Amino acid sequence: MERDPLEAKSPYTMYSETVELIRYAMRLKNFASHSATVAEKKLAVLCNRCLSLLYLRMFHLKKDHAVKYSRSLMEYFKNSAKTSHQAPSPWRTNGKVNGTPSPLSLSPSPASSVGGGSGGAPGSSGSVAIPQRIHHMAASHVNITNNILRSYEHWETADRLASDSQEFFQELDSAMEPLSQQSSMTELVRYIRQGLHWLRSEAHLL
Amino acid sequence: MERDPLEAKSPYTMYSETVELIRYAMRLKNFASHSATVAEKKLAVLCNRCLSLLYLRMFHLKKDHAVKYSRSLMEYFKNSAKTSHQAPSPWRTNGKVNGTPSPLSLSPSPASSVGGGSGGAPGSSGSVAIPQRIHHMAASHVNITNNILRSYEHWETADRLASDSQEFFQELDSAMEPLSQQSSMTELVRYIRQGLHWLRSEAHLL
Repeated sequence: MERDPLEAKSPYTMYSETVELIRYAMRLKNFASHSATVAEKKLAVLCNRCLSLLYLRMFHLKKDHAVKYSRSLMEYFKNSAKTSHQAPSPWRTNGKVNGTPSPLSLSPSPASSVGGGSGGAPGSSGSVAIPQRIHHMAASHVNITNNILRSYEHWETADRLASDSQEFFQELDSAMEPLSQQSSMTELVRYIRQGLHWLRSEAHLL
Repeated sequence: MERDPLEAKSPYTMYSETVELIRYAMRLKNFASHSATVAEKKLAVLCNRCLSLLYLRMFHLKKDHAVKYSRSLMEYFKNSAKTSHQAPSPWRTNGKVNGTPSPLSLSPSPASSVGGGSGGAPGSSGSVAIPQRIHHMAASHVNITNNILRSYEHWETADRLASDSQEFFQELDSAMEPLSQQSSMTELVRYIRQGLHWLRSEAHLL
């Protein structure tokens, strides 16, 4: 993928497609389930370590945007909380926050059933109107930070599964350098390649 | 703080208060500025490493909530994007998204000036109504993920400042274990204590 001259892709796209490829391969068989064999679980450990470091890389590539969005969003939510305590905004339709129903009260208007499609029925818990730029920013922020959350999730899954094959991974860690969240892509590739080599060799596929 | 029997605090509060204490101390003098002395920059490195690992700890304590919120928010934003493309919601007031002004059009109503206090004037770029639970969730999500973003920021600042005192930190790394994002609080305390001891000793304060 990296050497295709016709398709110069951004690193983010390349990492993201690699993630999709590994996730696809993992869906073919549930390597991490209870019924999986020890060898399958070892493979699942390697896949989860790859996913973790790829998600981490993707997060790092967009981290600066997330920092910028995070500041604006924190500022917005701080002001929004102040506004709702000091001077209830007419945009808030929740009875608890705004005692008297505002002229813009969103329920029980026929429109609420349409709005319900986008995540929740405004009738029951009320709606808040937010500037569109904040809405976009929040969506991007969630997408970027999702990468770091996924990274930690896969790292922990790998640790959990590796506890069933301690000897194998201790030997692999001694032969190579143990992987960490600071490992480079080169170190990751070498580690995984060695691990796969041993797995094939154990299964007499070599 | 940890041993005060009268005040049993949650680890999160304890870490958060320690962060505030270090930030306060750092505000007394701008250790990281260009005019700071080499010794001051060394102290700034130690402070930034502390802050980074404390923020990381705070993130880990609430990570599971962030994962849950992240899933719900991604789902919400995905549906919200679909809705806006396939069937413009009457909640959207942006002319680009919803060609014909809806009966609930939020501008130019007198209320828009009140809503403007919470982050942006709805008149210029439009507003989006979101369910209140999504609003709360987004606020919590931004707060939790802010910790991991801060953690990386302080780690990078420490690395940058440490490049001016390579010898000092190489010696400290050899004497102790080099700090990493996997370091325990005990390792952090020992490392910082040793660093402070050397700094005092260099300044002939011992």
